[in-house]
Amino acid sequence: MNYIEHIGIAVKDIKKSNELYASLLGTDPYKMEEVLSEHVMTSFFKTGNNKIELLEATNEQSPIAKFIEKKGEGIHHIAFAVDDIQSEMDRLKQNGFQLLQEKPKRGADNKLVCFIHPKSSNGVLIELCQSIKDE
Amino acid sequence: MNYIEHIGIAVKDIKKSNELYASLLGTDPYKMEEVLSEHVMTSFFKTGNNKIELLEATNEQSPIAKFIEKKGEGIHHIAFAVDDIQSEMDRLKQNGFQLLQEKPKRGADNKLVCFIHPKSSNGVLIELCQSIKDE
Repeated sequence: MNYIEHIGIAVKDIKKSNELYASLLGTDPYKMEEVLSEHVMTSFFKTGNNKIELLEATNEQSPIAKFIEKKGEGIHHIAFAVDDIQSEMDRLKQNGFQLLQEKPKRGADNKLVCFIHPKSSNGVLIELCQSIKDE
Repeated sequence: MNYIEHIGIAVKDIKKSNELYASLLGTDPYKMEEVLSEHVMTSFFKTGNNKIELLEATNEQSPIAKFIEKKGEGIHHIAFAVDDIQSEMDRLKQNGFQLLQEKPKRGADNKLVCFIHPKSSNGVLIELCQSIKDE
């Protein structure tokens, strides 16, 4: 776990929230990206070495739609940058953490990702993410 | 807003959670500190330039006790490092954000802090924090 790569925030209307977070952070989002497999539209802001990722559901199957229905808008996950996601997944599994994927999967922002079940970590959904180099 | 200074996580039993997060992050907490004014015991972990702060309520008046009663354990707030907290508070107030303090107050970890109402920022409780230099 190298550092906090980003914090994901579930929002209902990403266009409105882009304006709100630009006003809050004093910087505009530097990109928007749709992740089809997760049924989300995302936008990214830089704050130092870290990022804020806003997430809007693109349909009702989206985990973000379910999250907002249950808990309302708010912080959805913390993502930690790792150098070698597979070895970090192995280490955490050995330590008793419940992983939501058997293998790393493709996430937003050119990353391989894996999530840890919030039950394993005091209600916090944690993402591991490793940058994909060869592209 | 310079970078993510820390993420605050509300937990029921900080001793158990210290072990859990040490196992998760691969590093032990580097300090524990009680903040009497907030009725919390805190512990801090380093992850790169960022910190994870665990918060346990020390009595029923604690905002952390109320948070856990309402929402369960989980992410409580995001704190951003700022150089000049008063000017950042003025800027945000002008931009329509609702601040929870009129003046910066003393927080954990030798910081001046101010919180922004989660209603202002899509359900996210945001803390500004400025390091206190002269000590």
